[in-house]
Amino acid sequence: MNEALKQAKMAFEEGEIPVGAVVVSKNRIIGRGYNQTEKLQDVTAHAEMLAITSAANYLGSKYLPECRMYVTLEPCPMCAGALYWSQIGEVHYAASDSKRGFHHCNEHMLHPKTKVYTGLLKEESESLVLEFFRKLRE
Amino acid sequence: MNEALKQAKMAFEEGEIPVGAVVVSKNRIIGRGYNQTEKLQDVTAHAEMLAITSAANYLGSKYLPECRMYVTLEPCPMCAGALYWSQIGEVHYAASDSKRGFHHCNEHMLHPKTKVYTGLLKEESESLVLEFFRKLRE
Repeated sequence: MNEALKQAKMAFEEGEIPVGAVVVSKNRIIGRGYNQTEKLQDVTAHAEMLAITSAANYLGSKYLPECRMYVTLEPCPMCAGALYWSQIGEVHYAASDSKRGFHHCNEHMLHPKTKVYTGLLKEESESLVLEFFRKLRE
Repeated sequence: MNEALKQAKMAFEEGEIPVGAVVVSKNRIIGRGYNQTEKLQDVTAHAEMLAITSAANYLGSKYLPECRMYVTLEPCPMCAGALYWSQIGEVHYAASDSKRGFHHCNEHMLHPKTKVYTGLLKEESESLVLEFFRKLRE
């Protein structure tokens, strides 16, 4: 999750909502991504989407059952839908998203085989988002 | 929807599940896409996602409130999530997807301002998908 947080900090520095994600396979990072919706002016450029595409490119396979995603914020429904299609093995998210987290859309959006873990580096990930919006309001 | 169906036929010819989408702004097509998940080995490469990215690139804006999407199959939750973020004005889909259509996930996945229309070229779009799976089984 430390590496996902590093990605989130890169988003922060570029004026993007600070969310970062990495995909790990056999203890090796094979995909990274941070939110770039502003820079690319593309709503699909969430950290998770970029990390999924990057990992799939690395493996040459669209399915990621042996992989784990670490992401600093609970995925939104779009990203949860993509994670479903990828059949990813595990999703670890740090902070919950009380507004646009996928749980508020449907509890069962991920693939039935995907295991979900939460809470790792929760405070640090949350603080970064809160700090971003505090600065934005100034 | 004729143009979306043309895109779906291109997917069919390339051995992809035949779904096509276009984004229209001021009666002009500004984004097109057809399913390329096999060719790109990327679960995020659905017709709708590619058409959204393409339209946003054209406009230089990630928001598409003045746009209409025509797509040959009911969007899945991933694509509905992306359409939500884009705040697209209208979504017209041809055939319903009884398995992975977004309605089975949550009725209210699209943006509250997005109007939804269905049924245009339903039979043609459905036949194309059925034909694809019939051939696949042979």
